[in-house]
Amino acid sequence: MNGLLTDLYELTMSAGFFAEARHDYMATFEASIRRLPRNRDWLVVAGIERAVDYLLNLSYTEEEIDYLRGLRQLRHAPPEFFHYLRDFRFTGDVDSVPEGTVLFAGEPVLSIRAPLIQAQIPETYLLSAITFESLIATKAARIADAAGSRSVLEFGTRRAHTPEAGTLGARAAYIGGCSGTSNTLAGFRYGIPVFGTAAHSWVMSFQDESEAFRSLQRLLGDQTVQLIDTYDAIEGARKTAQLGRPLWGVRLDSGDLLKLSLEVRQILNDAGLQEARIMASGDLDEHRIAALVSAGAPIDSFGVGTELATSADAPAMGMIYKIVELEEEGRLRYTAKNSEGKPSIPGAKQVWRAPDGDTVSLATETVASAVPLLQPLIRNGRRVGPVESIETMRCRATETRRNVSANHPVRRSAALESLVRKMQDHVTRLS
Amino acid sequence: MNGLLTDLYELTMSAGFFAEARHDYMATFEASIRRLPRNRDWLVVAGIERAVDYLLNLSYTEEEIDYLRGLRQLRHAPPEFFHYLRDFRFTGDVDSVPEGTVLFAGEPVLSIRAPLIQAQIPETYLLSAITFESLIATKAARIADAAGSRSVLEFGTRRAHTPEAGTLGARAAYIGGCSGTSNTLAGFRYGIPVFGTAAHSWVMSFQDESEAFRSLQRLLGDQTVQLIDTYDAIEGARKTAQLGRPLWGVRLDSGDLLKLSLEVRQILNDAGLQEARIMASGDLDEHRIAALVSAGAPIDSFGVGTELATSADAPAMGMIYKIVELEEEGRLRYTAKNSEGKPSIPGAKQVWRAPDGDTVSLATETVASAVPLLQPLIRNGRRVGPVESIETMRCRATETRRNVSANHPVRRSAALESLVRKMQDHVTRLS
Repeated sequence: MNGLLTDLYELTMSAGFFAEARHDYMATFEASIRRLPRNRDWLVVAGIERAVDYLLNLSYTEEEIDYLRGLRQLRHAPPEFFHYLRDFRFTGDVDSVPEGTVLFAGEPVLSIRAPLIQAQIPETYLLSAITFESLIATKAARIADAAGSRSVLEFGTRRAHTPEAGTLGARAAYIGGCSGTSNTLAGFRYGIPVFGTAAHSWVMSFQDESEAFRSLQRLLGDQTVQLIDTYDAIEGARKTAQLGRPLWGVRLDSGDLLKLSLEVRQILNDAGLQEARIMASGDLDEHRIAALVSAGAPIDSFGVGTELATSADAPAMGMIYKIVELEEEGRLRYTAKNSEGKPSIPGAKQVWRAPDGDTVSLATETVASAVPLLQPLIRNGRRVGPVESIETMRCRATETRRNVSANHPVRRSAALESLVRKMQDHVTRLS
Repeated sequence: MNGLLTDLYELTMSAGFFAEARHDYMATFEASIRRLPRNRDWLVVAGIERAVDYLLNLSYTEEEIDYLRGLRQLRHAPPEFFHYLRDFRFTGDVDSVPEGTVLFAGEPVLSIRAPLIQAQIPETYLLSAITFESLIATKAARIADAAGSRSVLEFGTRRAHTPEAGTLGARAAYIGGCSGTSNTLAGFRYGIPVFGTAAHSWVMSFQDESEAFRSLQRLLGDQTVQLIDTYDAIEGARKTAQLGRPLWGVRLDSGDLLKLSLEVRQILNDAGLQEARIMASGDLDEHRIAALVSAGAPIDSFGVGTELATSADAPAMGMIYKIVELEEEGRLRYTAKNSEGKPSIPGAKQVWRAPDGDTVSLATETVASAVPLLQPLIRNGRRVGPVESIETMRCRATETRRNVSANHPVRRSAALESLVRKMQDHVTRLS
């Protein structure tokens, strides 16, 4: 499954490894955060479960292999390469930080040790799956932090980069700190709380707005959220107040949310509906929410769509996947590239977390009084360790943000630093 | 299939339509461009094929219906609603502009006439599928325009919002004007030309860079693209020149691409490799490419990843899906919302294109000397009209951009304008 869902060069290189009889050399590749986007101080990692599913199910159909055979780039590929793909099964080891972990620039997220060909092909999929969910979890965490004790609901599937990305984004947003999602499939698939009552089309499909509100109450009872801004928000609030209970509250989706929420609160209170809540939505992000909260807007819950589902102010990130070690006929060699502005760091690594900062070390080292973040996930192609609940991941994200500051220091161990220097000297001598 | 892949409120409203015996009222909904992102003058439409597939296959499993039955929001839903979902089949009509069409703000993209419930549920999926592919096709068109006669390859799956979005994005990028993609699955599935040779890990997996280059030549022959910047781009160019033919060319992926391409061109020419080409990649977008082209950089081909696969400077767009007409017991009623800053335009519409501008009219009108852009796609739940090739869509996008300027005027017909005014007056009187 998903065997072709990769950049072609992963497959041409794999054919080349075969042609040079290097495909079985044991290699270690690492996915790591080269740099964070301009407006992010940390990353909430997500998408690891999907990465594991992918690796454990990666395979090729006969039809897919026939397609590859026909490509001009693979016309000189050895026949054994195609036989290998037919029987492809991932047999390597994977270590990863658990989902919900907060990481910083320069830290590895996931490490794969496997025969060179098995570690090369997954690059494209792993980068995309992990980066995307991590971007959304991070954005959700920022928005939840801005909302404080008020709840944040993820409403963005219609703006996500495909409906399926919306579903995965809903999962990531929940890990990051949202209280639920409007995406029904995410509720079904991941057990996330789902929310939703009615859109403007509900109101518009009735000739009379009050009749639309009344019908919704009949259906939803105390779950009723009246969307009051189809024609005029204040008028909508008055009609809602007139109808009274049962009612969860109202939703504002346009206009000046501070001004409107204050007026609507007054209208509801005047009608004796003190317990009725106000939800706000419409082009919200962490900055607008922080402004509304600090201005004292009486809003109980925020629905966030576009900005969250696309991580609009940081829709991409410099996550990289690089070969860091290669065992050639029993001899271990460290690898690093030295491209201008885009160097990579050699050696299989571990990240150690302590209250005073993180240490990135070689995987063979131990750092005293610190906790290793990369944990075994797959050994010899089989999953090891417990499958975590999404609630555990969500708690981890919340807990870590409480305990780790945005300027948490990240150091390299002496041994790693010395290896980096040695490699740079070597490369400089070569060129 | 995909029945739950929608916002929950589409389903609670649908249950409400049932409870009020309104679910079978014929409704017309339209997806249209409310506004373009700040830095876009037009939109290349894509994603319609996916929208059609979705509508024709939309259905619910027993397990999914059981999940819905258990939701607190649906505890008062009538039993007939769940029976309806079990037998759900889209039976309506769909009209759409064909993929590759260039549209402007205020124009409808797709129109659905169906029983209210059937037109309501698809909102979330349709908006996401069409917006995403359209954003990528548009970005690709801008980049292809900047590159002029040089080819642009889509390299961004690793940065896309899920690997699957990368595959659909590769399709959209091809429609927009790219010459091909690195995504192998997109090649297999859509017949798009695929490109790819080797990454830095290829070079790093050999102890000696020249040996890595030589091995690649043995595998790829005249398709060989040497990636020369793993350690030092100029040194890499010299080693490539030394090895000589067979060779397609070299790729630069870091550093000052203008300066490096000039130096590398000289090195290749000095070795008699005038026909060897230079490809450039690494954080490129339409602005950087335009600058390189106008500075005379001897670059023959551009590989674009992040900026294209995420439409990074415009990762979202205000596409909306609104009810515009409803037939209640034989009487047609126009519908529009009047939310502050977010009004909608009533009435089923058509867009007519003429050299001097577009006219948005009511669907019942005809505009002389102009071509109607919305075409029948589905009638009574069955696909009508020919399935276009992706090449046809790509040609349409290129042709239209050549013939339609960025400030192409968009007018409303007199009848539509009069309806809009009448509705606004009505709403103002109501409130």
